[in-house]
Amino acid sequence: MSTATVSRALSQPAKVSEATRTRVSEAVEVTGYTLNQAARSLRQRTARTILVALPDIRNTFFSTILDAIEREAATRGYGVLVVNRFAGAESGRRLHEYFLSNRADGLLLLDGTVDLAQLLVLSAEPSNVPLVMACETIPGAPFHTVRTDNAYAARVATRHLIAQGHTRIGHILGPAGNVLTAEREAGFRTALAASGLATRPDWVLTGGFEMEHGLAAAERFLALSDRPSAVFAANDESAIGFLSGIRRLGLECPRDVSVVGFDDVAVSAHFWPPLTTMRQPREALGRLAAEELIDLIEGKPPRSVPQHTVLSSELIVRGSTLPAPIESASTSVQKQ
Amino acid sequence: MSTATVSRALSQPAKVSEATRTRVSEAVEVTGYTLNQAARSLRQRTARTILVALPDIRNTFFSTILDAIEREAATRGYGVLVVNRFAGAESGRRLHEYFLSNRADGLLLLDGTVDLAQLLVLSAEPSNVPLVMACETIPGAPFHTVRTDNAYAARVATRHLIAQGHTRIGHILGPAGNVLTAEREAGFRTALAASGLATRPDWVLTGGFEMEHGLAAAERFLALSDRPSAVFAANDESAIGFLSGIRRLGLECPRDVSVVGFDDVAVSAHFWPPLTTMRQPREALGRLAAEELIDLIEGKPPRSVPQHTVLSSELIVRGSTLPAPIESASTSVQKQ
Repeated sequence: MSTATVSRALSQPAKVSEATRTRVSEAVEVTGYTLNQAARSLRQRTARTILVALPDIRNTFFSTILDAIEREAATRGYGVLVVNRFAGAESGRRLHEYFLSNRADGLLLLDGTVDLAQLLVLSAEPSNVPLVMACETIPGAPFHTVRTDNAYAARVATRHLIAQGHTRIGHILGPAGNVLTAEREAGFRTALAASGLATRPDWVLTGGFEMEHGLAAAERFLALSDRPSAVFAANDESAIGFLSGIRRLGLECPRDVSVVGFDDVAVSAHFWPPLTTMRQPREALGRLAAEELIDLIEGKPPRSVPQHTVLSSELIVRGSTLPAPIESASTSVQKQ
Repeated sequence: MSTATVSRALSQPAKVSEATRTRVSEAVEVTGYTLNQAARSLRQRTARTILVALPDIRNTFFSTILDAIEREAATRGYGVLVVNRFAGAESGRRLHEYFLSNRADGLLLLDGTVDLAQLLVLSAEPSNVPLVMACETIPGAPFHTVRTDNAYAARVATRHLIAQGHTRIGHILGPAGNVLTAEREAGFRTALAASGLATRPDWVLTGGFEMEHGLAAAERFLALSDRPSAVFAANDESAIGFLSGIRRLGLECPRDVSVVGFDDVAVSAHFWPPLTTMRQPREALGRLAAEELIDLIEGKPPRSVPQHTVLSSELIVRGSTLPAPIESASTSVQKQ
């Protein structure tokens, strides 16, 4: 079997016979990506392209990070391939294809929901695909990471509400199964516990990272017979949807409920009320992740020691949070 | 000189001698991209990748379109390379490099500020790079286009204000030198003229497509001794910045001024007041542009006849526009 046949079987499987396809796929299984590596040395050059996999580019949090990644990559002479909203069982296979076909030199993964086993195959011998995870990481996975300390930042956000005298504090969760959701909820619970406050299960509202999720959370909030005086939302988009939802139904922020978001997306400063939030260093996240990946591709740091870069988020206090109403504040004093 | 030497000279110029570099670059100048085409047939396959060039991915208008492009491309088995904020004299050369190095099969250009001469070289013989322009087009350029009718949509937006009884209407411009800015301003002026209303030069405020530009326009608006009762902003982001700016300085929309935006980005429905705007069919724009480009790459429509697809925008009336105050409305009646 010639190289051209193998290449055709991989790139245009419909053009070769069933028997050829089977023989090629068996060979690929045995040799992993040695084919790919061989092709690479044959061409005497790399693709000079990084593959960036994102959960949702429509979210300005990610598009700002992608902007920073693209600028850093361009500075280093690399192109940026984008894969978006690709989660699911097929995601690992879809990523593999980019490296099989030699279209990218490394993977910058911003989505923590990809199957870890598939990522391990990709990053281990013989494929050896350089891989950096950013923002959303997989706890314990042996990859280089660039992220913020979400649990700590969620504690800071919740503590801001407690410092304002709030004792009745709710939370709008991120999407189910997302590592950021778990970390931010943990930070919220830790802050409450550290102040001797209980987490009321009916005040932890299911949510997500889109405005519609915050809108739906507002409906559940309004249906409560006994409502919290403050809410920490898992991101700005859900906080904005929540504010929009309660307003439609006659409540006002911060008069009726204080709200803290997370991210500091561009619109948060211009919203009404301007949103108190945890500002994530998005530009630095994207730039450092791209730097790290390109360093790996170019063989700079030793591959066997994963680097973990953790950046800080900053509390930005704006108009959506106010001190708790007097009766709530006095309850707080009695409880402590 | 061998193919490997040429390839090395193009991809790793530092590794070959000055004399070799010169000979190769002369050959490239003479043969255009025939090298590229030869390499392509040699490999018996295409890159199965499209290059998408955007003015600013941080703007959710573009990131939503990119999302649709990426999904359509993935369905057709194509990857998406992204180049962002690349305008300037070097932009054409930067785009060329992707095709020289065989990293992409076609160009989807969403930025109307790229030098036309450079695009013509790219799309003509011998390079023959399939090219589709979307959203921002270059009037008269011989490329396939997918866009909305911006001048007509701007007329609809302005007419909505006139129908509400406003006769004192201002405009916040988009960025200077942008085709969308020119088209939307033209539509604004046409609508006023058709109703016998004058365009007051001091009511046409310089702006841009980011929130900060709307904020700056608000300051100029507030400095006017005689203000319009309604404003049409060239996009939603500048409308949102404008609303934020007038609010900080004590004015309220729609009580003191009605505002219409353009695009209907996700936050516009959730803003306070919810923004009246022209909804552009972003998902369809992205999907059709990607379809068109991949059809071109795969040789479907005849290359010599540029297709022009024009989609409609839709007026979405929300809370940011109200009928003009009585005194203004009666002035309107007298004028007509």
